[in-house]
Amino acid sequence: MQHRVVVVGAGFGGLEVVKDLAGALVGITLIDRRNHHLFQPLLYQVATASLATSEIAWPIRSLVRDRPEITTVLANVTGVDAARRHVLLQDGKTVPYDTLVLATGARHAYFGHDEWEPFALGLKTLEDATTIRRRILMAFEQAERETDPTRQAALLTFVIVGAGPTGVEMAGTIAELARDTLRREFRNIDTARARVVLIEAGPRVLAGFPDDLSDYALRSLRKLGVEVELGRAVSDCTADSVAYGDVRLATRTIIWAAGVRASPAAEWLDAPADRAGRLEVMPDLTVPGHPDIFAIGDVVTVAGPTGKPVPGIAPAAKQEGKHVAGIIKARLGGKTEPMPFRYRHQGSLAQIGKRRAVIDFGRIKLRGALAWWLWGAAHIYFLIGSRARLSVAINWLWIHARNQRSARLITQGEAADLSLAKQAEPPAPGRIR
Amino acid sequence: MQHRVVVVGAGFGGLEVVKDLAGALVGITLIDRRNHHLFQPLLYQVATASLATSEIAWPIRSLVRDRPEITTVLANVTGVDAARRHVLLQDGKTVPYDTLVLATGARHAYFGHDEWEPFALGLKTLEDATTIRRRILMAFEQAERETDPTRQAALLTFVIVGAGPTGVEMAGTIAELARDTLRREFRNIDTARARVVLIEAGPRVLAGFPDDLSDYALRSLRKLGVEVELGRAVSDCTADSVAYGDVRLATRTIIWAAGVRASPAAEWLDAPADRAGRLEVMPDLTVPGHPDIFAIGDVVTVAGPTGKPVPGIAPAAKQEGKHVAGIIKARLGGKTEPMPFRYRHQGSLAQIGKRRAVIDFGRIKLRGALAWWLWGAAHIYFLIGSRARLSVAINWLWIHARNQRSARLITQGEAADLSLAKQAEPPAPGRIR
Repeated sequence: MQHRVVVVGAGFGGLEVVKDLAGALVGITLIDRRNHHLFQPLLYQVATASLATSEIAWPIRSLVRDRPEITTVLANVTGVDAARRHVLLQDGKTVPYDTLVLATGARHAYFGHDEWEPFALGLKTLEDATTIRRRILMAFEQAERETDPTRQAALLTFVIVGAGPTGVEMAGTIAELARDTLRREFRNIDTARARVVLIEAGPRVLAGFPDDLSDYALRSLRKLGVEVELGRAVSDCTADSVAYGDVRLATRTIIWAAGVRASPAAEWLDAPADRAGRLEVMPDLTVPGHPDIFAIGDVVTVAGPTGKPVPGIAPAAKQEGKHVAGIIKARLGGKTEPMPFRYRHQGSLAQIGKRRAVIDFGRIKLRGALAWWLWGAAHIYFLIGSRARLSVAINWLWIHARNQRSARLITQGEAADLSLAKQAEPPAPGRIR
Repeated sequence: MQHRVVVVGAGFGGLEVVKDLAGALVGITLIDRRNHHLFQPLLYQVATASLATSEIAWPIRSLVRDRPEITTVLANVTGVDAARRHVLLQDGKTVPYDTLVLATGARHAYFGHDEWEPFALGLKTLEDATTIRRRILMAFEQAERETDPTRQAALLTFVIVGAGPTGVEMAGTIAELARDTLRREFRNIDTARARVVLIEAGPRVLAGFPDDLSDYALRSLRKLGVEVELGRAVSDCTADSVAYGDVRLATRTIIWAAGVRASPAAEWLDAPADRAGRLEVMPDLTVPGHPDIFAIGDVVTVAGPTGKPVPGIAPAAKQEGKHVAGIIKARLGGKTEPMPFRYRHQGSLAQIGKRRAVIDFGRIKLRGALAWWLWGAAHIYFLIGSRARLSVAINWLWIHARNQRSARLITQGEAADLSLAKQAEPPAPGRIR
């Protein structure tokens, strides 16, 4: 009977496995709880009204439509029965496998402070992005109508926690939104006076980059008017303030780009995991004691060549996916010798603002306008399909030339649902009337 | 002191008033409960995954950014104090006016059967559209996994109530979605077997068009595989069925394109209104007894030249807005003689499916491919800004050439929130985790 491969998660890693198994004599079931693959690296641009959701997300079915051996299943996986080789779904159904690949990713985490979640908005899904977009735009709308200067100042204070690539990119883009895009559109407030505060517990921004690029990023952020607070750990988040160091800052908008926690795959298998819940896999990316179960991407921790862990970025997940597909094909061919995964770091990119980016290719380091153009070209190249590439290019052109951001829409709930009292709650349902 | 004009509603009518008052020595306050102007005529294309929300909606502020005399207010209007000349807002604030223009539009209505609302989805806001999109796409996803043939058939039955332009366009597009776009992407179901049923109480589809164009539309819909039920009034809508004539049809998706009810402006003013709540205005579009209050668009009923009421379409609202702006300017110039509104019907357009449309210019009648190209060109022309025009043109090109629809995203809530049990409820909130 045909070998059955089940892949859980249609992110960068899971899709790469499926892609590389093309032509192999296997039946593939691809399970995801969403109907779309998401281009995570540009999700912050949806959150900042620069791109539309449909420009960075694609229906999984359409990506594999020409592969009749692939069955796409939209469902929540709740566990794995490793003894009977079944994946368990929330609706009670099960999916049998011969080889299982877990690529279930990670979610933002609050270092044991889950009570911060309603106030400190994470950015992992399209809903997260449209929620952040709504919250940012509503803060300006409410500030415009607020007569009390103290409340107005709080509404015009935007706090980003965590100065990795996402935090830096969010901070820079929000600053540009306030200073360029919105400036001439309000009558009672000067949006350029909005405070954008980036709080980082570590000693520098973009800690994954070389010192000189970090310094350049820091200078660029400050040029954009971003207040960067280094070496300050956040100690509290509430509906109307954030506390760090000995400061408590009044704000209505806190964006959380600080920590992630792996999805519960380790619990499914009762397998060893690190403090962030990441599976500690064998050198060949199998789960210890389960040679027929692989795990890749943000749900695992695996040592890179230099000994420090492989970073949680798309290229790493893709390399792991390619490696796993290779092992599966080798095993089908009867080869069983262990094939350890070797990570090759191709480079790190981060955009700081219009015409400013940093790129670290190891030997070659780039910053400034050239780096920004390369950053843009690379991201457009990695989008799926000419339609999305064309469409994103057009949007970036408009932002670049006219500071017009195309997706400045406040959706989910109406103005009345978005009173200050409601600001701290999860998004209100889109009301039918 | 400067004359204060307050416009409530930034739809086609309200925006036209504001636009035509450019250069007049007035202060303008533009109030809307949403932050965006919506291009209603293409909303059904968001509901059918053809277009992205940001391609048919624009931030109101950005549309009037170059008009410093205009103040944009995002708020819910709850009433009018005509004696003190104040507009009352939900947050308790008031906005004083010298001249008031009510352009608050209409909402879908259920002929006194509001209990149908959770089951029969209306299409007036971006949230309505993304909800319908999610419901349609989820029905196919659930049918793919459904083993009981009866339930599967119900999931693959899509009912549209009302065969006006919106109903006809929805029915045709859903049929194409099922037969062309989705066909090769499912493994357990043949999406082309999906039933699309269009129910109309009247004797023909597109009743506003001449008979021969109605007949052509009917034939075209049937060519697309749409089951058209004429002369059948819907008598009941539930979570899993619709009743019409002596039939009760099992379905999980009912789309309501049958009736509208005006927003409550008539109640605010205690003014005469028709059965649909539309203000009965004077020939000059003022509210009886309130010469300083105008009402335009879908919130009013006004007789056209032929005696029958002016249709509730964008060009009519624009003409009314232009007329009101003209009166306001004339009054500022000291002219007070009455200026009755005269409606000029420029034509009616409706798309039935790819390469099929009907256009009625009165003397000239068009149908088929040429009409479809004209329909597309006209709609792209009326979009706001080159960015949206370019972006919509690209999407239509892709649909036309490849049957690829760019916005097939199931958002708001996750797969788990969308079990059959939940299908009948209003959209679940986009969960933060």
